[in-house]
Amino acid sequence: MDERFFILVPIGSVIALIFAFIQGRKVLGFSEGSELMQKISRSIRQGANAYLKRQYTGVLLFFVVMFVVLGIMAFAGFLTPFVPFAFVTGGFFSGLSGFVGMKIATAANSRTTQASSESLDRGLRVAFSSGTVMGFTVVGLGLLDLSIWFFLLKYVFYANLAADPAEQVRAISAAMLTFGMGASSMALFARVGGGIFTKAADVGADLVGKVEAGIPEDDPRNPAVIADNVGDNVGDVAGMGADLYESYVGSIVATIALAVAAGYDYGGAAVPMIIASVGIVASLIGTFFVRCKENTDQKVLLAALRKGTYVSSAIIILAAYPIIYYFLDCAKHPERIGVYFAILSGLIAGVLIGFFTEYFTSQTYKPTKELAGSSLTGSATIIIGGISLGMMSTVLPAIIVGVSVLVSFFCSNGAQSFAQGLYGVGISAVGMLSTLGITLATDAYGPVADNAGGIAEMAHLPAEVRERTDALDSLGNTTAATGKGFAIGSAALTALALIVAYTDEVAIKAPDFIFNLNITNPPVLIGLFVGAMLPFLFSAMTMRAVGRAAQNIVVEVRRQFREIKGLMEGTADADYATCVDICTKGAQKEMIAPALTGIISPIAVGLILGVNGVVGMLAGATTTGFVLAVMMANSGGAWDNAKKYIEEGNYGGKGSDAHKAAVVGDTVGDPFKDTSGPSINILIKLLSMVSIVFAGLIIRFALFK
Amino acid sequence: MDERFFILVPIGSVIALIFAFIQGRKVLGFSEGSELMQKISRSIRQGANAYLKRQYTGVLLFFVVMFVVLGIMAFAGFLTPFVPFAFVTGGFFSGLSGFVGMKIATAANSRTTQASSESLDRGLRVAFSSGTVMGFTVVGLGLLDLSIWFFLLKYVFYANLAADPAEQVRAISAAMLTFGMGASSMALFARVGGGIFTKAADVGADLVGKVEAGIPEDDPRNPAVIADNVGDNVGDVAGMGADLYESYVGSIVATIALAVAAGYDYGGAAVPMIIASVGIVASLIGTFFVRCKENTDQKVLLAALRKGTYVSSAIIILAAYPIIYYFLDCAKHPERIGVYFAILSGLIAGVLIGFFTEYFTSQTYKPTKELAGSSLTGSATIIIGGISLGMMSTVLPAIIVGVSVLVSFFCSNGAQSFAQGLYGVGISAVGMLSTLGITLATDAYGPVADNAGGIAEMAHLPAEVRERTDALDSLGNTTAATGKGFAIGSAALTALALIVAYTDEVAIKAPDFIFNLNITNPPVLIGLFVGAMLPFLFSAMTMRAVGRAAQNIVVEVRRQFREIKGLMEGTADADYATCVDICTKGAQKEMIAPALTGIISPIAVGLILGVNGVVGMLAGATTTGFVLAVMMANSGGAWDNAKKYIEEGNYGGKGSDAHKAAVVGDTVGDPFKDTSGPSINILIKLLSMVSIVFAGLIIRFALFK
Repeated sequence: MDERFFILVPIGSVIALIFAFIQGRKVLGFSEGSELMQKISRSIRQGANAYLKRQYTGVLLFFVVMFVVLGIMAFAGFLTPFVPFAFVTGGFFSGLSGFVGMKIATAANSRTTQASSESLDRGLRVAFSSGTVMGFTVVGLGLLDLSIWFFLLKYVFYANLAADPAEQVRAISAAMLTFGMGASSMALFARVGGGIFTKAADVGADLVGKVEAGIPEDDPRNPAVIADNVGDNVGDVAGMGADLYESYVGSIVATIALAVAAGYDYGGAAVPMIIASVGIVASLIGTFFVRCKENTDQKVLLAALRKGTYVSSAIIILAAYPIIYYFLDCAKHPERIGVYFAILSGLIAGVLIGFFTEYFTSQTYKPTKELAGSSLTGSATIIIGGISLGMMSTVLPAIIVGVSVLVSFFCSNGAQSFAQGLYGVGISAVGMLSTLGITLATDAYGPVADNAGGIAEMAHLPAEVRERTDALDSLGNTTAATGKGFAIGSAALTALALIVAYTDEVAIKAPDFIFNLNITNPPVLIGLFVGAMLPFLFSAMTMRAVGRAAQNIVVEVRRQFREIKGLMEGTADADYATCVDICTKGAQKEMIAPALTGIISPIAVGLILGVNGVVGMLAGATTTGFVLAVMMANSGGAWDNAKKYIEEGNYGGKGSDAHKAAVVGDTVGDPFKDTSGPSINILIKLLSMVSIVFAGLIIRFALFK
Repeated sequence: MDERFFILVPIGSVIALIFAFIQGRKVLGFSEGSELMQKISRSIRQGANAYLKRQYTGVLLFFVVMFVVLGIMAFAGFLTPFVPFAFVTGGFFSGLSGFVGMKIATAANSRTTQASSESLDRGLRVAFSSGTVMGFTVVGLGLLDLSIWFFLLKYVFYANLAADPAEQVRAISAAMLTFGMGASSMALFARVGGGIFTKAADVGADLVGKVEAGIPEDDPRNPAVIADNVGDNVGDVAGMGADLYESYVGSIVATIALAVAAGYDYGGAAVPMIIASVGIVASLIGTFFVRCKENTDQKVLLAALRKGTYVSSAIIILAAYPIIYYFLDCAKHPERIGVYFAILSGLIAGVLIGFFTEYFTSQTYKPTKELAGSSLTGSATIIIGGISLGMMSTVLPAIIVGVSVLVSFFCSNGAQSFAQGLYGVGISAVGMLSTLGITLATDAYGPVADNAGGIAEMAHLPAEVRERTDALDSLGNTTAATGKGFAIGSAALTALALIVAYTDEVAIKAPDFIFNLNITNPPVLIGLFVGAMLPFLFSAMTMRAVGRAAQNIVVEVRRQFREIKGLMEGTADADYATCVDICTKGAQKEMIAPALTGIISPIAVGLILGVNGVVGMLAGATTTGFVLAVMMANSGGAWDNAKKYIEEGNYGGKGSDAHKAAVVGDTVGDPFKDTSGPSINILIKLLSMVSIVFAGLIIRFALFK
């Protein structure tokens, strides 16, 4: 292969960033609406900024400490000297992705409201454009970080290894893997902290405002209403961005690492990067196919968004073939073209998981309609129904991931090489994530539409505006559910690739180490038990954190209702900032323990059970975590939409006993779908990343080898 | 070793059965109480008999079909000719255990009520004695089935192999493993069917009686009240008995199978059987230490029951040492004495899991008290709190099982033999279950006390009687929770032993088969995904089944309230039999799909993914199933006791909003703790058993070898 093709990677990155910039300018060109709308939007923006500022300050401290720890380890010879720096850049770019996404989302909310007051298509365009800023920033920054390190390592730091390409790729990928850990850590803080913030505000606002005081959602008299809207941004935008940034670079880097063992060297390393780069162009083209008419019908709107994704996927399907053919030198090795089917299987798996997520969580299908019906016999039956719906919904995603792995493996190991098969598994994750630019855009659009609806309500705009933003928001719930299915599917495939990369890493670091990854080997088996338990522990911690933080909001909102005279009559303003501040502090405090659990567990398990135990733990956490995350996301999504379905007038409509039962379901579902569930995605990747970075330490000091 | 020692095994069995018979006679010697109490008890007994009759008829059909299928397979050479017969005896004895337990429990309920009207100690003695009948029947029949097959195979069918003891033990254990599958199948039907019955009746009775009509629990005007009491017997007694019968024989047989690979032959086969036999005597002695004074304090009562268990454990700890020393020939091989510590670790793990289960679910400790407090903010928060409590409670049991496996393995492989280490894991399960006679007695006592309370209520006995039966019942909830922890702990260890036995079985059947149990091998990995998903699917199916069956009860109870004139005024009798019939039919219909899932999954996975995939699936189902089962049992137990804690007058007491929220939690917890959770124990064992029996078929026809 011609190494000059590598220049396509930074080119793809720059295209993405320029497009994001243009789209951002376009969004900012729209009108912000009335004075009042601007004021509300400003409050949300200020709250979000205050949150991010505090979060980044706290996380900075963590990164400084980790930088020192990694520096000492590098000095002691357990790590290459680049690791501390790679770690920091990973964290930086991940954080930046979330930051940019949130900036544009908080700028786009009132503009979406204003545009919706003109026409639905305009509203969709503003909201979706702001989503594309986020989507393309994530992929652009991801490829930028990759490019910088790749070129630096190849042509500067490891230029001396040029004579032995295999050795050079190996060294490069080992260094690059560690920036994944930086990205994961950052993502975990963003997801967990944001998830706690958003649900503490949401649950707290609902419990006192809707249930106790009987005022509607998004009512400006509720002191927690701004915090609730801030939460949409810091949780669903900044958290989601950091999460998928991490999956994106993680899957590419892991696949590069697998390329060496497969004997593909630079050709194998090029494929994931070039596919990603081409995916950016494909996503960009896809965005031009997203438009709609003045029609609030869900299916029409959804079809408008879907069209973009399908067009992008089709382009990838066409482009991937020549890429694989050329870079894997299929003219000489015809069996290698099988890798193409790995990409296809990843893409198709992503679409299918998204589809089944929608099937189980959208009120247009039977499961959620039936769930809504179970509210007729009270909250207990809708809770049982929602949990069993979520559990049932794990069957197909698990099988889809399984089939995708099987197809990827067996199509790619044409030469009966185990390592080539595993490379195929890695590449399928890359395939699934290749259209991330546009899939993330359709996902990040949701919170913007949600905020826009809130602003329409708070600014007392005409009912037709609220109707349009509601249509956009409801669609956002569906795309968010699909996006969550996609995030967890890609996390599972990425984690699998990382597990294999970990074993490769150990094999390089300790060529004499004798693996016993036999599943009946006690350390592996115990690792599996611990790994299966971790997602449960993690979910318990994050759910309790939400509970505690929400409790503080409840107390504060009650206090304001009691002490601020004229608040309920609308003659005095609520003190929104205090609620934002309480959520911020709560989230900062509560995210520490779960984050440390993610970082300490693999080190502790490694030090006791050794490398084999770590692999067992990673496999256990990935499989159980996948199933649990799907269950929690889908139970939560279905409860949310079951409530909406009742509010549309079914089973007695708003205010009926069935509705009250459904509200209980929705409240239980909130931390399920927006805090615990999505955090598990990052947990399973972070566990792998930490294991890889600390492999040297574990090999040296483990109790059981 | 002297083979004459094997005679100790049937002797142990006979001692257990004679003791059970004597205890049974003793229970029957007590007075049944007044005419009315006898009538109520008779209704419960008739309902339970009707249920079991129907269940056994249905199951008989299943066994006939399976007998034919296995017969054909044996004829085709995939199985030895004993398999179909062994399968049937396993099912028969498992069913018989449940049957006897239920017979005595339904005879003891009104006698316990009557005895409680005399003194608390008398009440405890009747209830506990009936529990011992169950406990000793299970272990007695277990050892009887084992003895019969062991002696038949050794001295008749495989007498020709006597020259090669290793080969003979191998053949014997292979044949004996298959009666485990019979026991598992029977247990699954009993647990799932009974679990659906009991919770459909309970939930249905509560939803209409307590919530809609506002009449108290166990009120004779509620048409579902008899069905509810029948449910306690068919679910908690018959189901639990069949479950633990299966763990008991499963762990012993699996360990015998592991003895061959470890090179221990008959000595290694003798240890689990002799330990079990000695355990019967130890349990018997322990029962004499269970007595109490007239003191309804929970801690005193619990201490009375505990004393029996502790005495039995102490005896085993003393007796196991010489047994191991002699049978494993430690005079010659001093390193083998390490196996002793495997037994200890199993025993200690059982006690610890039981303790932590109690800690998380009893209202005398902080977690459940806090959970009760979370009901103050409504049903949503108590649901979130209960789920996170259950998730949190999985951490220690997972670590305890892990440590127990690690200790057992590394203490037992003194000669650095992998197979000897695994034998240690098997023996730790035997150690945990060695005191089953008495632990099961303390567990089976619960439903009897529960029924006794119901009868006291229905027969309008004085308040002090109800107070005493309540004290006994509340204690029963604690022992039931401990018993559930014990059941799942032993199921996990047994399943692990069975997984290893499976690989041994494959190695024997296909000596040329090349295992690739490496956890990164795609079939293993996909097996893990499918395995992790199965307990979720299974739980979803059983929870939905309860929901549907309960719905039918709701409809029927409403109909009776409406149509039977004078029912609410107490001048007309409710039609109890129809409710029992509806539950029976519902349970029979609904148990088919989950049971078939358990049987078909390992065959389907095997035919596609081959042996390696099956091992992955078993490991995934065991680890995830263990964690999920612990979570469901503990969430459910904690909700139940949080409700009781509020009813004791805390947080507003009965009738308060907090109480209403807690009732929602309790209702959600019902299928968690009594249907889905316990059924998972059997699922994970059944999957292993089916895999073992169908190993030959899988080896021959699997798509991916």
